[in-house]
Amino acid sequence: MNKTIDNSTQPIILTGDRATGPLHLGHYVGSLAQRVALQDTHDQTILVADMQGLTDNAHTPEKVSSNILNVVADYLAVGISVEKTTICLQSQLPALAELTMYYSNLVTISRLERNPTVKNEIQSKGFERSIPAGFLTYPISQAADITGFNASLVPVGDDQLPMLEQTNEIVRKINTLAGHNVLTECRPLLSQSPRLPSTDGKNKMSKSMGNAINLGATPDEISAAVKSMYTDPNHLRVQDPGNVEGNVVFTYLDAFHPDRHYVEQLKGHYRAGGLGDGKTKQILEECLQELLRPIREKRAQFLNDKAQLLRILAEGNEISRQKTGKVLHDVKQVFGLNLF
Amino acid sequence: MNKTIDNSTQPIILTGDRATGPLHLGHYVGSLAQRVALQDTHDQTILVADMQGLTDNAHTPEKVSSNILNVVADYLAVGISVEKTTICLQSQLPALAELTMYYSNLVTISRLERNPTVKNEIQSKGFERSIPAGFLTYPISQAADITGFNASLVPVGDDQLPMLEQTNEIVRKINTLAGHNVLTECRPLLSQSPRLPSTDGKNKMSKSMGNAINLGATPDEISAAVKSMYTDPNHLRVQDPGNVEGNVVFTYLDAFHPDRHYVEQLKGHYRAGGLGDGKTKQILEECLQELLRPIREKRAQFLNDKAQLLRILAEGNEISRQKTGKVLHDVKQVFGLNLF
Repeated sequence: MNKTIDNSTQPIILTGDRATGPLHLGHYVGSLAQRVALQDTHDQTILVADMQGLTDNAHTPEKVSSNILNVVADYLAVGISVEKTTICLQSQLPALAELTMYYSNLVTISRLERNPTVKNEIQSKGFERSIPAGFLTYPISQAADITGFNASLVPVGDDQLPMLEQTNEIVRKINTLAGHNVLTECRPLLSQSPRLPSTDGKNKMSKSMGNAINLGATPDEISAAVKSMYTDPNHLRVQDPGNVEGNVVFTYLDAFHPDRHYVEQLKGHYRAGGLGDGKTKQILEECLQELLRPIREKRAQFLNDKAQLLRILAEGNEISRQKTGKVLHDVKQVFGLNLF
Repeated sequence: MNKTIDNSTQPIILTGDRATGPLHLGHYVGSLAQRVALQDTHDQTILVADMQGLTDNAHTPEKVSSNILNVVADYLAVGISVEKTTICLQSQLPALAELTMYYSNLVTISRLERNPTVKNEIQSKGFERSIPAGFLTYPISQAADITGFNASLVPVGDDQLPMLEQTNEIVRKINTLAGHNVLTECRPLLSQSPRLPSTDGKNKMSKSMGNAINLGATPDEISAAVKSMYTDPNHLRVQDPGNVEGNVVFTYLDAFHPDRHYVEQLKGHYRAGGLGDGKTKQILEECLQELLRPIREKRAQFLNDKAQLLRILAEGNEISRQKTGKVLHDVKQVFGLNLF
C-alpha cells in the first residue's frame, strides 16, 4: 500500500535517478542510504526520470525502458518503503512536461549554455554543436520536476548546484510575474559522503565501463570486481610499505566496513608493510558479500513480481499526478490560462 | 453541438493561430476564407495556440489570455462551423507538451538555429542571444501539434515551409526508430492569395502597429483606416494619372470587392487620371463596411455569451485530447514507455 496524500508538515524532498542502468554501490553510498534515513522525517518523493534518461539516449531507448523496473526494485531492496516514500515515473506525469513548456519561455538559450554542469556533460559526451535540444534544456525540465512537487530540499552532489540555481531563477521569475509566491525556492541537501571511486580508480562509476558493482551483482561478480580493484601500484611485495590514499580497496572499506576501528588498524598495518593486497581484498569482499546478499535477494524477489512493481509505481503516479497537477494549475493561473 | 469523432476518410488538416491579438482582414484573406471552404471537404482542426503565443510574450501573458475567446469568436463569426471543424486550445492538450519533450531529443540546437523562419523572427524581434528557449524550440512544438493530430495537410504561407520540413524530419526519425510508419509526413497547402499589405503599405499587418483592420472593427475604425490608407504619393491632383501597383486601396479592392470587372474599370480610370483617392476610398469603405457588418455583429453576439464559447472550446478539447492522446501513446510505444 502506497502512502496517501496527507497534510504533512514534513519538509518536502524530491530526489530521483535517470533510469539508464541498474543502481550500484556509488548510488548506495551517495544517495540511497540517505533516502532510507530521510523517509522517516521528510515528505519524500523519488522520481524515476525516464524522460530525462532519453535526452541523451533517444536512439537507444531500450537502455531507459528496460531499466525502469530495475531501478524501482533497487529502491525497495535497499529499504525504501512505499509507506513512507512516493515512487513515481516521470513519463506518467504530463504536468511536468507542461511546466517545462511554460518555464522554457523564461530561460534564454545563452543562460542554458552557461550552465557549468551541462557544459561539462556536453564536453564529456562529445556532443559539441549537435546537442539535442532536450539535452541542453534538461535543467528546465529538472526545474519542472522540483517545483512540480513543491520541493524545498533536493539532495545533490556539489556538481549539481547549478541546477538548483537555475530552478530558483525560474521560481523567482514566476513569483515576480504573479506578484506573490506561487512556487517555493529549493535548497540543496549536500551529500555527506565523498563520491565513491570506480573499481579501476580512474573514472566515474558506470555500468557500461564495467567498473561499478551493481546492487544486484552476483557473488562471482562481486568477487571478480574486488579482485581486479585498483590498489597501490608501487606496493609490489607484501613486506613493502603501501599507500592507503587513492587505494580503492581502502576507500571501499571506509565506505562499507561496519568496524571503523578495525579498518584504521588495517590501514596502519598496510602503511607499515606486511599486509598484502590479497588479504585486504579478502576482507573487503567478505564485507561486500554480506552487505549485498540480502539486497540482491530482495531485489530478485521484487523483480520476480513485476505486476507488484507496476502497481507500486501506478499508486505513486496517481498521488504525484495530483501534486504536480495542482502546481501546474497555479502556474497556468499566472499566465491567465485557467479558463475551464 | 461540436462534431464527434468519426472514421472519416477525409484528409486531416491542422491549422490555427497564435492567440496574441484579434484576427484581422489579413487573416480573413490569408486563411479564414480558405478554412470556411475546407471544412466541407476536410477533417479540419483549428488549434488556438496559446502556449506558442507565450514563447515571446511570457512577460505579458495577458496579451495571450485576453485574446483566446476573441479568436474563437472571430472563427465563428466568419463562418467556421463547429459541426464541421474542431476548435481546440493548445494549453488544454497535455499530449502536445509531452510529444514536444520526446521530439526535443531528436532535434539538435544547431538544426534549430539554422531554421530560416526562426532566424528571421529572432532578428525582427531583436532577441539576439537572449532568445527564450521556448522560442528557439517552437518548431518542435509545432511538429508536436501537426503530428499530434496526424495531419497530412497544413495550410501555410511559403515563409512557413521550413516548419513543415522540420516536422517531417522528426516524423522520419520516429518512423526509423520504430521500424515502421508511426507518424504521417505532412504536405503544405499553400495559400492562393498574396499576403495583404498593412494599411500604411509599409509593414506586416499587426494590431500593435495600428495598421490592420480587425474583423471586429467598428464602422468608425473602418472609415478611419480606409481614409488613412497609403495610395500613390505622386498622385497629387485628381486629373493626374495614378499608380495602381503598390496602391493599398486597389490591393484591398482586388481582395475584397465582389465585382472584379468594376475594379478593373476603376483601375483604368485611375491610371488615365481623373479618379481621385477620395472616390476610390469611398468605394473601398462601402465594400468593407458591408463585408464586416455581419461579421462584427455575429462576433459581438458570440462574445456576449462567453459560457457558450467555453463550451465550444471544451467540446473541441475533449475530441482533441482523444486524438492527440492516441498519437502520444504510439510515440511512447517507440520509446518503450507504455508500461501501464
